Amino acid sequence: MITSVVNVRAGNYDVKIGHDLIQDVGKLTAAVHAPCRIGIITDDNVAPLYLSAVKASLTYAGFEPHSLVLPHGEHTKSMEYYSRLMETAAGWGLRRTDMLAALGGGVIGDLTGFAAATYMRGIDYIQIPTTLLAAIDSSVGGKTAIDLLAGKNLCGAFHQPGLVVCDIGTFSTLPDEVLSDGAAEAVKYGIIRDAALFRSLLGGKENFDADYTVKRCVEIKADIVGRDEFDHGERKLLNYGHTIGHSVEKLSGYSITHGHAVAVGMYVIARAACAAGLCSPDVARDTEKALLSWDLPTSCEWDYTALAKAAVHDKKIEGEKISLLIPKRIGEAYIFDIPVGKLTDFIGAGEKS
Amino acid sequence: MITSVVNVRAGNYDVKIGHDLIQDVGKLTAAVHAPCRIGIITDDNVAPLYLSAVKASLTYAGFEPHSLVLPHGEHTKSMEYYSRLMETAAGWGLRRTDMLAALGGGVIGDLTGFAAATYMRGIDYIQIPTTLLAAIDSSVGGKTAIDLLAGKNLCGAFHQPGLVVCDIGTFSTLPDEVLSDGAAEAVKYGIIRDAALFRSLLGGKENFDADYTVKRCVEIKADIVGRDEFDHGERKLLNYGHTIGHSVEKLSGYSITHGHAVAVGMYVIARAACAAGLCSPDVARDTEKALLSWDLPTSCEWDYTALAKAAVHDKKIEGEKISLLIPKRIGEAYIFDIPVGKLTDFIGAGEKS
Repeated sequence: MITSVVNVRAGNYDVKIGHDLIQDVGKLTAAVHAPCRIGIITDDNVAPLYLSAVKASLTYAGFEPHSLVLPHGEHTKSMEYYSRLMETAAGWGLRRTDMLAALGGGVIGDLTGFAAATYMRGIDYIQIPTTLLAAIDSSVGGKTAIDLLAGKNLCGAFHQPGLVVCDIGTFSTLPDEVLSDGAAEAVKYGIIRDAALFRSLLGGKENFDADYTVKRCVEIKADIVGRDEFDHGERKLLNYGHTIGHSVEKLSGYSITHGHAVAVGMYVIARAACAAGLCSPDVARDTEKALLSWDLPTSCEWDYTALAKAAVHDKKIEGEKISLLIPKRIGEAYIFDIPVGKLTDFIGAGEKS
Repeated sequence: MITSVVNVRAGNYDVKIGHDLIQDVGKLTAAVHAPCRIGIITDDNVAPLYLSAVKASLTYAGFEPHSLVLPHGEHTKSMEYYSRLMETAAGWGLRRTDMLAALGGGVIGDLTGFAAATYMRGIDYIQIPTTLLAAIDSSVGGKTAIDLLAGKNLCGAFHQPGLVVCDIGTFSTLPDEVLSDGAAEAVKYGIIRDAALFRSLLGGKENFDADYTVKRCVEIKADIVGRDEFDHGERKLLNYGHTIGHSVEKLSGYSITHGHAVAVGMYVIARAACAAGLCSPDVARDTEKALLSWDLPTSCEWDYTALAKAAVHDKKIEGEKISLLIPKRIGEAYIFDIPVGKLTDFIGAGEKS
């Protein structure tokens, strides 16, 4: 089968974007790493669909694949499953020259990346995202993490993958709300950096161009991460909607998914920014339009006081100020620091507007 | 009080070596880091001796210290206590600009370093070693780790401290066998790099010059780590005696301590190297002399077959060869790769010699 692969260079590694790439994982991996043992980490939703193909592809390319199937869901990104993964990797006899592969969504990608970052003080790994969210967000950029009881992503490392293989075809098996989860992040990229991308998303699922969207989102992310790998400045742009989004996730006990929570977060901040006169009213209105076209929420059951309080415990806080991302207009955002104590008033003014 | 501090530069940070430095920890830390929250991690042996002084020193230098006292012993270097430490740090509200401090021996240093490497994807930390072993070995060089059930140090990261404060006076409270644990590593530095250091250690505890020993060992380690931070080549020299040493620790269920196990490991390898004609017979004889002068063991209850088998599961194995360190003569060592399958014969020949 002939595949047309778009190649986006992110730091020292390639992001391969195309159709029917699952069966080429072995060949693509062999191009960047000598044959070795490779531990494939996946979940019980993804394993029945793609694990056999990935294993076969790796085997025929000369690798020795092993696999671990974990439960799906955010609770797998925990100390418990991290510990299990590490012991399993040791049981496979993985050495410093061996690899891990993350086959699945953001949870599997973040957990596997963190395991690769810390197994024997760091081994190589590849990302094979099977959700839109993982493809455009968590699989690129090297942020790996597990959650603590005290909060999401509090335990992690920066560890770039050696390769990202993004098979667009895997999105066809996603339930609508999981696809929407990814669309929320795509909307984010549009708001912070690319008005044309934003407009292309206004048609919802029916008019969705996955190839174009993934390519543009990965290009934007690779560009930003390339200038700020360790999250000291510009990379904060990627957190648009995430401060409040993390509050929503946390308050819901993670029953509200990441993209849906970020959707709420983006709209809350857009309204607050509009109310404060930091952006034109179009921004909130257009954001709402985009989110609704993907059946994404713009509100939640917690009021601004609860959201602000939960946000203050979020890891994005540095010193006594909190860095918010404010869309100046659709396609352009900037970092805006406000004192931690003012967050409640800031988003409250938006809610009341 | 006037303290004479020896300063050894290791990478981007200083190792301060002197007497009565515990009360200067705050001042020394303030010289390298802005005032912040600082989580002091220590154990129940060390806390009664030095925790109050360290806290007071940090408080008066403008820091906000918190502390966590863990049980002493190797079992604290586990996923369980790592998890507890991370949750505790989050409970203190530590942010990316805050710090950890390791006050104790190698177990506390390795665990705290790994927590600092991974808390919010990496925060700063300082090392305050209170054992000879930690002062000359684990506190310098940035190798951090916890143990898995499957093996020692299998889970970790490279993360350099921002400062090492080594108060020689803390060694005076060490039980003899804990001091000997450190002496084993000092003997190692002598064998691999410095014959004069080696000779100075032949007098045992009675003639021990701690200031000179710590300074020379830290200089040697800083020099080697400076050229090979990520353990791809020369740094393996520091593993002299450790391949078999780790086997001894593992087979004993960690009831035999690190330095004692490394002592056995060094002597086993020295005899094997002599038997193979890879070094002069003096090396084994002199090694034995040095170890006995510190009441360190030169043998254990497991034979070479058991030791080799346990070593093969050790993390230092890359591909199908095992890198051994061989002393050419006292003061000079080299890396010698042998096939994994030949290890039993190699050390067996030494045991039978």
